[in-house]
Amino acid sequence: MIIVLKKNATASEIASAESNVRSLGYEPHTIRGAVRTIVAAVGDESANASLEALSVHPFVDRIIPIQKRYKLISRESGANPLVVNVCDHQIGNGNFHIIGGPCAIESYEQMKASGDGALAGGAHFVRGGAFKPRTSPYDFQGMGSEGLDILARFRKEAGCPIVSEIVSEGDIDAMLPMVDVFQIGTRNALNYSLLQAVADTGKAILLKRGMSSTIEEWLLAAEYIVKQGNPNVILCERGIRTFETATRNTLDLGALAVAKQETNLPVFVDPSHAAGRRDIIPALAKAAVAAGADGLIIEVHQHPEQALSDSAQQLTPEDFKELVDDIRPFIKVAGKSLA
Amino acid sequence: MIIVLKKNATASEIASAESNVRSLGYEPHTIRGAVRTIVAAVGDESANASLEALSVHPFVDRIIPIQKRYKLISRESGANPLVVNVCDHQIGNGNFHIIGGPCAIESYEQMKASGDGALAGGAHFVRGGAFKPRTSPYDFQGMGSEGLDILARFRKEAGCPIVSEIVSEGDIDAMLPMVDVFQIGTRNALNYSLLQAVADTGKAILLKRGMSSTIEEWLLAAEYIVKQGNPNVILCERGIRTFETATRNTLDLGALAVAKQETNLPVFVDPSHAAGRRDIIPALAKAAVAAGADGLIIEVHQHPEQALSDSAQQLTPEDFKELVDDIRPFIKVAGKSLA
Amino acid sequence: MIIVLKKNATASEIASAESNVRSLGYEPHTIRGAVRTIVAAVGDESANASLEALSVHPFVDRIIPIQKRYKLISRESGANPLVVNVCDHQIGNGNFHIIGGPCAIESYEQMKASGDGALAGGAHFVRGGAFKPRTSPYDFQGMGSEGLDILARFRKEAGCPIVSEIVSEGDIDAMLPMVDVFQIGTRNALNYSLLQAVADTGKAILLKRGMSSTIEEWLLAAEYIVKQGNPNVILCERGIRTFETATRNTLDLGALAVAKQETNLPVFVDPSHAAGRRDIIPALAKAAVAAGADGLIIEVHQHPEQALSDSAQQLTPEDFKELVDDIRPFIKVAGKSLA
Amino acid sequence: MIIVLKKNATASEIASAESNVRSLGYEPHTIRGAVRTIVAAVGDESANASLEALSVHPFVDRIIPIQKRYKLISRESGANPLVVNVCDHQIGNGNFHIIGGPCAIESYEQMKASGDGALAGGAHFVRGGAFKPRTSPYDFQGMGSEGLDILARFRKEAGCPIVSEIVSEGDIDAMLPMVDVFQIGTRNALNYSLLQAVADTGKAILLKRGMSSTIEEWLLAAEYIVKQGNPNVILCERGIRTFETATRNTLDLGALAVAKQETNLPVFVDPSHAAGRRDIIPALAKAAVAAGADGLIIEVHQHPEQALSDSAQQLTPEDFKELVDDIRPFIKVAGKSLA
Repeated sequence: MIIVLKKNATASEIASAESNVRSLGYEPHTIRGAVRTIVAAVGDESANASLEALSVHPFVDRIIPIQKRYKLISRESGANPLVVNVCDHQIGNGNFHIIGGPCAIESYEQMKASGDGALAGGAHFVRGGAFKPRTSPYDFQGMGSEGLDILARFRKEAGCPIVSEIVSEGDIDAMLPMVDVFQIGTRNALNYSLLQAVADTGKAILLKRGMSSTIEEWLLAAEYIVKQGNPNVILCERGIRTFETATRNTLDLGALAVAKQETNLPVFVDPSHAAGRRDIIPALAKAAVAAGADGLIIEVHQHPEQALSDSAQQLTPEDFKELVDDIRPFIKVAGKSLA
Repeated sequence: MIIVLKKNATASEIASAESNVRSLGYEPHTIRGAVRTIVAAVGDESANASLEALSVHPFVDRIIPIQKRYKLISRESGANPLVVNVCDHQIGNGNFHIIGGPCAIESYEQMKASGDGALAGGAHFVRGGAFKPRTSPYDFQGMGSEGLDILARFRKEAGCPIVSEIVSEGDIDAMLPMVDVFQIGTRNALNYSLLQAVADTGKAILLKRGMSSTIEEWLLAAEYIVKQGNPNVILCERGIRTFETATRNTLDLGALAVAKQETNLPVFVDPSHAAGRRDIIPALAKAAVAAGADGLIIEVHQHPEQALSDSAQQLTPEDFKELVDDIRPFIKVAGKSLA
Repeated sequence: MIIVLKKNATASEIASAESNVRSLGYEPHTIRGAVRTIVAAVGDESANASLEALSVHPFVDRIIPIQKRYKLISRESGANPLVVNVCDHQIGNGNFHIIGGPCAIESYEQMKASGDGALAGGAHFVRGGAFKPRTSPYDFQGMGSEGLDILARFRKEAGCPIVSEIVSEGDIDAMLPMVDVFQIGTRNALNYSLLQAVADTGKAILLKRGMSSTIEEWLLAAEYIVKQGNPNVILCERGIRTFETATRNTLDLGALAVAKQETNLPVFVDPSHAAGRRDIIPALAKAAVAAGADGLIIEVHQHPEQALSDSAQQLTPEDFKELVDDIRPFIKVAGKSLA
Repeated sequence: MIIVLKKNATASEIASAESNVRSLGYEPHTIRGAVRTIVAAVGDESANASLEALSVHPFVDRIIPIQKRYKLISRESGANPLVVNVCDHQIGNGNFHIIGGPCAIESYEQMKASGDGALAGGAHFVRGGAFKPRTSPYDFQGMGSEGLDILARFRKEAGCPIVSEIVSEGDIDAMLPMVDVFQIGTRNALNYSLLQAVADTGKAILLKRGMSSTIEEWLLAAEYIVKQGNPNVILCERGIRTFETATRNTLDLGALAVAKQETNLPVFVDPSHAAGRRDIIPALAKAAVAAGADGLIIEVHQHPEQALSDSAQQLTPEDFKELVDDIRPFIKVAGKSLA
């Protein structure tokens, strides 16, 4: 870290800064600049105590961290896996995968029709939520354990990997049998207790970015999972909250590009939640492919006009199939192959 | 709700919109405007199915909700309590309360010195976290159950109400004996599973606003708790995430003012997390009092420069006492009384 | 507009709302809902006085506009041009164009090398700024009129259309001879005096989105220009300001998609300013093409490491050529043709 | 500045970084850390060329500036004035001033009634806009030169200082006779051409913060004015654009507090534009006083329900008087005196 001192720091204040740095386990290197003095603290920031406490001193202007705070998932470390295996699919490493399916499980018939529709349209995995974190307590909250039973039946019949959101540690055991990829939603993106508990299952985790998480916070959330011993993390950019209201969120493909630079983890994009309106989902889906995404997660519902949640952004199976057909050439020129 | 049709909607499309509205349990009132036709759907939006699904139709431009989505906590409903009782304190209703104490419990000595310091400085309640949700998995995560033991001992000696953050449903039982007010932190502000589980304890809940929650989302989170049968909610504005980086968050006192208009719940302000830097905490604390806050929560640590978390924003007991003395006249002219 | 009344509005208050609506030139249609009464005001919102003034009355909860505020550029109006002609180029209508060149003009040699480099790499137009609005008054502010002379010389030799930013009405006359497309930068995106004055020249205008402009504000800024009698507007999305700091701005391709839905104006994308860092410019450029952009504007400098502004985001001519080659297949599968 | 090198930078890359630093006029100090090597560049950052260009090199991870970019207005420099004199008023230095008056000049009668009402209510200065930058070209744009005539007449009769917004360099001469304080609005907060031209008049300038300006950008805009030789700058916080829509903007009193720490310039607050709704203006006004503001600017209109702009946020003279009376005790306990 760099400790920037106030403009008129005295010699004894500089000495005090140096001794503080030393007592925290770092080696101080002091540089007297034209205008300010800085003290560079040499040492492994992740191993030693934080120097931020030095900001307490009135002669300190500010503290600047140098090291990146994620290690295990860092491309620089080279240690993280390039692919996440789910059933017989290798996610990442040039393969492009699509997750399709309804926002929420509403009945067996709806799950069956929507899930089969997604598969027929080109999806590799099927999503469907039994537990829905909704902004209002008066909105449909999901079918809960009954929904899980439907999911289990659908999975048995369709034989395909299932992606489903988990919102409580208490649901892990119930979900384990019928869920192949645990989805962490945007509202729980910084719920570290949940992240650690789900990580312990060893299953693949689709980690959505928090709606107001910085890229660094998103990657550190992934680091929580990997540090727990579970390397099977799929990052998912789904739009961030900004001042713009014409779309539900603002899709941040720069975050996708930065995440690909910083880590070797596969990165998916969720154009459905980013848009919040079906008319621009195709444009965002193509853009995500072109920007280097490893996959997409898209909401598909047999009858969006009857959906109990997210009706404005779910595609019919027909529209979904058309979308997948439209993005095929983009996947190809992006150098990826659709499994 | 209002269904706004596209500019050139045909007669049959208008009829279709009307029949859809009817089938969802509402009475349609169609108004042909100079440029557009709108269909007003009359009926209780919270009781009937959501009309948002109508946005599926290509002739619909957009759907506009009219009703407010919170009911139990609404000032219009008049049904919610004006005060939250914690031990022998009546929070709200013209009383002003201060919560002080360290960010995290680090040892018995630290908790004792910091908590006693806060009490000596004028705090009515003492805060201290045993579980700390930290952005990096390499940062201090709190002492856990050992911290709870320290909290229990401190509470026994000091005899004052304790405020402590809960981050997992699994910790409720362990925390019940020594916690008087459960704090829901900003990262769990939309963790509805946790909100409901904590609500079931019946204890008072200090509900921080999510760092990117709208006022409506924040109030609906409170509605989740009250709907669960627990009316003891204290709202807490703690700053929102914006583009500004000179402060840790942007304190939104407009949200405090709006919340006071919309509900009868007491509203606290956390200037420590809003500022993230100790030099401007007094200015924000005074502003919160003047804007109508019912209380403050402020981080106090015996030795901020040794703190294992939030060192930059914790006040010494001396600085805290000075701050409380400084805000006394503001509390008085704001028409509130310091208990 | 819709006037939503407070929950307990009395009969006389409703009558007052109706009479107010009438006096402002609208026809009131009152609908008594299950919970609230609303008054729909029928009439052309753009022709009549604004009903927003009604929010003054204590019985009014809020006012909701129904009509879109832009008319001339609206796709619904069908009246706006599909192409913008610049020299012999038809911008829009399936053609894809690229603007390349340095952020600022620094010398004849630099402009010549960078501009020729951009052209050799595939640019159709060359950019170069003589007037630079810089955050700090101590940063390089552009060469001013001397820069315009260089631009004129370069244009004469290269024979290609020139795009250059204008920051003051006072510079219009001096810039007219050597500028083919006036660029309005993000800081002046809501400077309506400048927009109108530049519109009066009749020349094509590249209108960047303000860094915190909503899509509606951006389109209304275009409406200002077209209303002035100049239909030659090229919209340009260049990223918005959000909480994320890993990129200079957050590229909002949803805004591109919405603008394409709402208007027939061509829309360009500026990945250089969105990224602020050269490593992710290619990813964002490809994404923009896939999302439906009609063109790109990219900063190219012969020696980025010596650039007096925006050095971190300017590409060398070699990197620019590689980028253009990389995006060619994306342009093709997007159904557009590179002129 | 600090140049942070990539993790595996070689000896020759480090040498290259050092030589580059030297060639830009700085002295390099290289520190080999546990994980990364950094090169501290010693020299006056405001005098030498920017080191940001070094980010071009592939072995550079990032560049971190150390110095603050504003000098003349910096509290550290100690050189800036403590008060701004307007007519016989000393703004700043413990005095508290209030600007009241209508958003826009609509007629002589309206200006007279509203302005006199503001003065009767306790305003020291009267505001009124002849030029209104409106989001839509179909909204009232102000009366222009006719408005200036009304302003001149009002000023002659009322004998009080006038604050009025300027939106174009071309209006300076016409406004000089009847304007005592030029207001720079939020849309022109980064319009440096306008700032410099208005600075040249030597008159006092009320500089509003751009709706998405960081505190640093806001202070640098003030630096532009002072560097031009005009020290009479009054900063004005008026709310920033965030995701929250319940208020027009989010008032950032942390920015007020930081600006007071960083500079000696007086800082005003505009609760009217921050709120955008009259019900919470009093709360925000009191909060601004308590946070240390040197003054307020508040919109006052004789008949808000007939106002041609900002009707939702203008106060009647009666409400304004009540507000001023309500904040008097807050001004007193804040240690300021109302002139």
